[in-house]
Amino acid sequence: MPKEFEPYYAVIFTSKLTDENTDYDKMSEVMVNLAKKQKGFLGIESARSDIGITVSYWQTLEDIKNWKQNSDHLVTQKMGIEKWYSWYALKICRVEREYSFQRAD
Amino acid sequence: MPKEFEPYYAVIFTSKLTDENTDYDKMSEVMVNLAKKQKGFLGIESARSDIGITVSYWQTLEDIKNWKQNSDHLVTQKMGIEKWYSWYALKICRVEREYSFQRAD
Repeated sequence: MPKEFEPYYAVIFTSKLTDENTDYDKMSEVMVNLAKKQKGFLGIESARSDIGITVSYWQTLEDIKNWKQNSDHLVTQKMGIEKWYSWYALKICRVEREYSFQRAD
Repeated sequence: MPKEFEPYYAVIFTSKLTDENTDYDKMSEVMVNLAKKQKGFLGIESARSDIGITVSYWQTLEDIKNWKQNSDHLVTQKMGIEKWYSWYALKICRVEREYSFQRAD
């Protein structure tokens, strides 16, 4: 029997930085390490070219809400709005199916 | 009254390229332009650093299925597996809520 797929949640965070971003990378790393310690955290992936895309994965919507309200994270969110981000968009999604490919060699 | 949120769908495509990727960027651009012409297409965002993340947005699951089965897209998927991707993962998600920030100045 195929293993049943357990839905989980993804937060798609897309952003464009301002020019005032000298301390952004460092704080970003601190936040990733903090996120990893939160209940329900499943993973995080990031890439940045012209825009940045970070996708974090969580067990439940409650876990996402708790992470959003984490006090250290709130401070960083405030700095993001005041300084780092020209714009951002955040989408909360339910992952309904997935598949992957891994090269053999 | 607040406007009711209409759920839509996101395809999160994360990938790592092989070293054989000289023609990847060109084909990627062709595929993006082709995707934009498909029924139900809502948008696409990409970034690449160590890994690449592309998120495309669609009105329905049926639209995503049709795009997956588009004949030109199938040819490119085959090239991706044979040549371009060291690995990839694809997640199909239902976007349930969203918010955004835009700097005023």
